[in-house]
Amino acid sequence: MQQADYSSATVFVPGHITGFFSAQTAATCAQAGSRGAGIALTDGVEVTVTPGSGLQLNGEEIEMLPVGDVCTRLGVDAAVDATTSLPLGAGFGVSGALALGTALAANAVFDCGKSENELITMAHCAEVEAGTGLGDVVAQARGGLPIRIDPGSPSHGRVDGVAARPRIEYISFGEVSTETVLAGDTDDLTRAGESALSHLLERPTLSRFMTASREFADDAGLVTEEVATAIDAVAKADGDSGDDIDSSAAMAMLGNTVFATGTGLSAAGYDAQQCRVDAGGARLCDS
Amino acid sequence: MQQADYSSATVFVPGHITGFFSAQTAATCAQAGSRGAGIALTDGVEVTVTPGSGLQLNGEEIEMLPVGDVCTRLGVDAAVDATTSLPLGAGFGVSGALALGTALAANAVFDCGKSENELITMAHCAEVEAGTGLGDVVAQARGGLPIRIDPGSPSHGRVDGVAARPRIEYISFGEVSTETVLAGDTDDLTRAGESALSHLLERPTLSRFMTASREFADDAGLVTEEVATAIDAVAKADGDSGDDIDSSAAMAMLGNTVFATGTGLSAAGYDAQQCRVDAGGARLCDS
Repeated sequence: MQQADYSSATVFVPGHITGFFSAQTAATCAQAGSRGAGIALTDGVEVTVTPGSGLQLNGEEIEMLPVGDVCTRLGVDAAVDATTSLPLGAGFGVSGALALGTALAANAVFDCGKSENELITMAHCAEVEAGTGLGDVVAQARGGLPIRIDPGSPSHGRVDGVAARPRIEYISFGEVSTETVLAGDTDDLTRAGESALSHLLERPTLSRFMTASREFADDAGLVTEEVATAIDAVAKADGDSGDDIDSSAAMAMLGNTVFATGTGLSAAGYDAQQCRVDAGGARLCDS
Repeated sequence: MQQADYSSATVFVPGHITGFFSAQTAATCAQAGSRGAGIALTDGVEVTVTPGSGLQLNGEEIEMLPVGDVCTRLGVDAAVDATTSLPLGAGFGVSGALALGTALAANAVFDCGKSENELITMAHCAEVEAGTGLGDVVAQARGGLPIRIDPGSPSHGRVDGVAARPRIEYISFGEVSTETVLAGDTDDLTRAGESALSHLLERPTLSRFMTASREFADDAGLVTEEVATAIDAVAKADGDSGDDIDSSAAMAMLGNTVFATGTGLSAAGYDAQQCRVDAGGARLCDS
């Protein structure tokens, strides 16, 4: 068991909205994951680790398999205290953020001497093995608008990015179980995800990312009625506005959630949350 | 020639101090560069691009080969206006920042539709071909404390990071010509750089990075008298202080410059600049 070097450490991990993805299996968890693209958000999760035990999110005790798994991999007894304004189970990567934040903070508290890639790999493997996510951790570690060209942790995967930093709005209508969707037949989803990625890589711009994300949600048959209504409303409001700001919307994977660029959702009359793209990725907060 | 889509775009690029490196040649500029490690700084360069021509740094017209090269590669006529508090030619990666900032900002202004990796590769190649730098661009794109395990642009190189975010102080005693050092016999330097990298990868922590950087500067025979005096003064002040904050200093490559963790230089009586580690890497500023 490692001895504690600092009494506590706090890590910020951006939320991550996936626009489209395809599940990718492999022999090892470090090579498995997903291809796809998404957006890291300035709205995220703050994770504080101290020596001890237990996991609290917004003041309530919760169970989250990947968090305990990360502590086991590091060989530490950590108490994890996290806060976020993001909804759980709604496609914002909160479970990935908890796993990655725990890895980075516990490494500092217990002076584990791991590199960033080693810590990202631990959190990625913990998520993949628990079935709670496939690509959020890698994207949250990087920040920006990550394009996951090859699946897996940093030592295996290949990541590029869309060079844009738009304002983002989002609204969530409830949960979708990532575990249930990923445990079902994912053939259609994989085909749709591969097609969307090819489309984006032809011209990796923000507008192409939004179009590819909408096409993916349609092709994969995941669009809920509330999501479809909101996406249409954003398109109509954008057409009516006549201004220069290009707004469009898509569905967050996997959640009953819509995100939009610019002022898309508020212009369409929704009471949406507003944030920006987080350029930095997961990071230790200044002590 | 591309048409302008936005009238202007501004990019922040962190300064980058190299602690140690080894030069790596290769068949293509995208594969060439250096292995090594350094620190991205919150003190950096703001680069604004508009349609036009010319390069200004802090209000003065300057010539900088990689900047024009990036514009040529993108096929744009750009006016580049940059400001920085960092000294030129002193080991802070200002030339890399100008090349990378120009690539990211011009891509936005002229709607070139390039991905982040493509833009980083353009700036990296422009630096390598001009001989003004070997690894700053890749490190500045990533942020944090990048360990460049394999040389080259993001499609070829492999980068990890030290998981730490210390406070940083620095002081510069003048210029060292990167071109002159890199054009000379670099065998000793390469051996010293490979040894320092092995040392760091055994245990990728902040204190190991500082030790490896000091050993590199000694082994490569690059330490100036002013630098040696300052590094010794920081070690003495740290030993005398008796507090818990571990401060140590090393030389910035390639500059007549010393950097320290914590309050190392100010505690030793130097009038040092203070900043933090920049976690985000180069990024478009919010419009």
